[in-house]
Amino acid sequence: MALRWGWGSASASAPVLFSLLARSRRRRCHHTITTVGSGKEEEEEEDARAILGPDLPDIWSPLPTSLPRPIPIPILDISAPAPPTIIDGNSIAHQIRSHISTHVINFKTSYGKVPVLAVILVGHRRDSQTYVRYKIKACNDVGITSLLAQLPHSCSEDDVLHSVTSFNQDPSVHGILVQLPLPQHMDEERILGAVSLHKDVDGFHPLNVGNLALRGRRPLFIPCAAKACLQLLLRHQIDLVGKHAVVIGRSKVVGLPTSLLLQRHHATVSIVHAFTHRPEEITREADIVISAAGVANLVRGSWLKRGVVVIDVGTNPIEDPDSEHGYRLTGDVHFDEAVKVASAITPVPGGVGPVTIAMLLSNTLDAAKEACRSSV
Amino acid sequence: MALRWGWGSASASAPVLFSLLARSRRRRCHHTITTVGSGKEEEEEEDARAILGPDLPDIWSPLPTSLPRPIPIPILDISAPAPPTIIDGNSIAHQIRSHISTHVINFKTSYGKVPVLAVILVGHRRDSQTYVRYKIKACNDVGITSLLAQLPHSCSEDDVLHSVTSFNQDPSVHGILVQLPLPQHMDEERILGAVSLHKDVDGFHPLNVGNLALRGRRPLFIPCAAKACLQLLLRHQIDLVGKHAVVIGRSKVVGLPTSLLLQRHHATVSIVHAFTHRPEEITREADIVISAAGVANLVRGSWLKRGVVVIDVGTNPIEDPDSEHGYRLTGDVHFDEAVKVASAITPVPGGVGPVTIAMLLSNTLDAAKEACRSSV
Repeated sequence: MALRWGWGSASASAPVLFSLLARSRRRRCHHTITTVGSGKEEEEEEDARAILGPDLPDIWSPLPTSLPRPIPIPILDISAPAPPTIIDGNSIAHQIRSHISTHVINFKTSYGKVPVLAVILVGHRRDSQTYVRYKIKACNDVGITSLLAQLPHSCSEDDVLHSVTSFNQDPSVHGILVQLPLPQHMDEERILGAVSLHKDVDGFHPLNVGNLALRGRRPLFIPCAAKACLQLLLRHQIDLVGKHAVVIGRSKVVGLPTSLLLQRHHATVSIVHAFTHRPEEITREADIVISAAGVANLVRGSWLKRGVVVIDVGTNPIEDPDSEHGYRLTGDVHFDEAVKVASAITPVPGGVGPVTIAMLLSNTLDAAKEACRSSV
Repeated sequence: MALRWGWGSASASAPVLFSLLARSRRRRCHHTITTVGSGKEEEEEEDARAILGPDLPDIWSPLPTSLPRPIPIPILDISAPAPPTIIDGNSIAHQIRSHISTHVINFKTSYGKVPVLAVILVGHRRDSQTYVRYKIKACNDVGITSLLAQLPHSCSEDDVLHSVTSFNQDPSVHGILVQLPLPQHMDEERILGAVSLHKDVDGFHPLNVGNLALRGRRPLFIPCAAKACLQLLLRHQIDLVGKHAVVIGRSKVVGLPTSLLLQRHHATVSIVHAFTHRPEEITREADIVISAAGVANLVRGSWLKRGVVVIDVGTNPIEDPDSEHGYRLTGDVHFDEAVKVASAITPVPGGVGPVTIAMLLSNTLDAAKEACRSSV
């Protein structure tokens, strides 16, 4: 009897799998993106497939209890302690943005126009203003046009809905982003639900979330931070199949879509949140920790297993009289402690953040291409 | 500093929470179901809220590492060993079906017609035929009309799509069920995706799945087996908030929606599948195990923590020369071993199965009510 616990051929690389499974996936994937044809579109198809993970059937081969347990395959070689890899988000973001710049030029050549992202900012939160500024600058840098609708904190929900509707109806706008959080007096779900599915570059529409959750289906857009986490893992060739990934936080912005995306990559996912009893215990079992709780230094070194891969999505301002603005940004993970235990770790800032913005550009470019293809 | 790790007031009961949070949820829930009004509709609203779980905000209160660890709150009192509760699915299903019978009579009085479920069965698999027979009998027993479209194994995908479309367009049909699995030569996702969202009583439509995944939103339908698992847990007053639930299997029929629903109830969820390395280790950490792998006796007693609650969704035929048909049904869990360790456990048969069928009747009734209300 052939025994296979989990991923017996753990050394099979993701690209091989993608290639092997390409034909079956092409038939099974349901999406509104135009069917592959040209070289460019095939390249896009490959990219999308890489992010969504290989389609592998679940075949259980139970192990008779009389046999000895399989020898654990270590995720990383910890026999020769090596300095941890500091995952450089800035460098990866730079590569992705260069790639996008080229594609924006090609897009302009093909369609005689540029991708357009509309941003809706309500109120005067300093952090939101900063994020929006970064996003707009990033658009400019790669040749994407941005429009900013800035509404006062005191405006009504209908005022925001009116902005969303205008951008939905404007064929020159390809992507719409509503900067979160919205003021307390607004119904965030109602406003986000009003964004056209085809312009939902944040990937928060329930149909996009459902298509992310269901294997064999493809969402039009995947939330940017989740996509960024996967980019960092895949570009560092971190094997996910069968690995135990603990996602800390369960927001629709990061935790939920990241947990769904890791499942598409056949990781064993545990979702830890504020109601979890003894979160440090389950986190200590993880091969990969992705933290998006929004609590500075929540994850201590003692929460981590030696050799773990740590992706820190937290971006928490903490007071720092020595810094220029009186505060600095820190992650959810206590970096100085974690770096002594992890095999690879993202810093904050300079880790997930810049790649998340690059993913927004990538989603906007995809939205523009799709809009132009479907209008031909 | 007030410390709250997980759910500090673990004794607060779900009904209290539902009541406390009713007002805020009513505003935040987005669904196409008619707004509450009459007593009957309020009752339905309460039922739906109970199944989807209380809406609790995530507030992290990190524990300084210098303080001693909080004392673990045991999920169940294991100091005085008691015989485990055998969760009686037949009895719970009977209660639910009586309730549905009454509502079907009321529906007939209100609208002058009865709910109608259309079932599409392709091919001649013996297990599928048996399941369909059970479902049709259950419909008859509660006064729901059933229609059966039976297609040969050799029919084309388009033939099945044609059946789906006919039922979609027929206003007298309220719910549509495509019995799975479909023959290999058919694209299951394409066929399921064709079922009208408002008749999707199996809850497999990606919009329903997305609305199940996103807290604050409400799907029109929740997959029947997932809803059945929650019914069994809730009716036995098993506290879920912060508990570690391990879901074994990740199909769209059971594992995926159950993991999403448990998250809506604020459990800490881990999803184990065929690629999980050493699934017994993570399962042994669970307070609640829900198994839907489809492998007879996969989960042994040694996989379980003392006091665990076990919900076994597996229905696996195994050879048995002593039984009438030469086989009998067994679960994913080795019952005789598990019963010595668990505090509560479902048998197979007579556990999740009958409640799953009751949930199909419940979804069909909901679909019929919604169709009639929206056509008024």
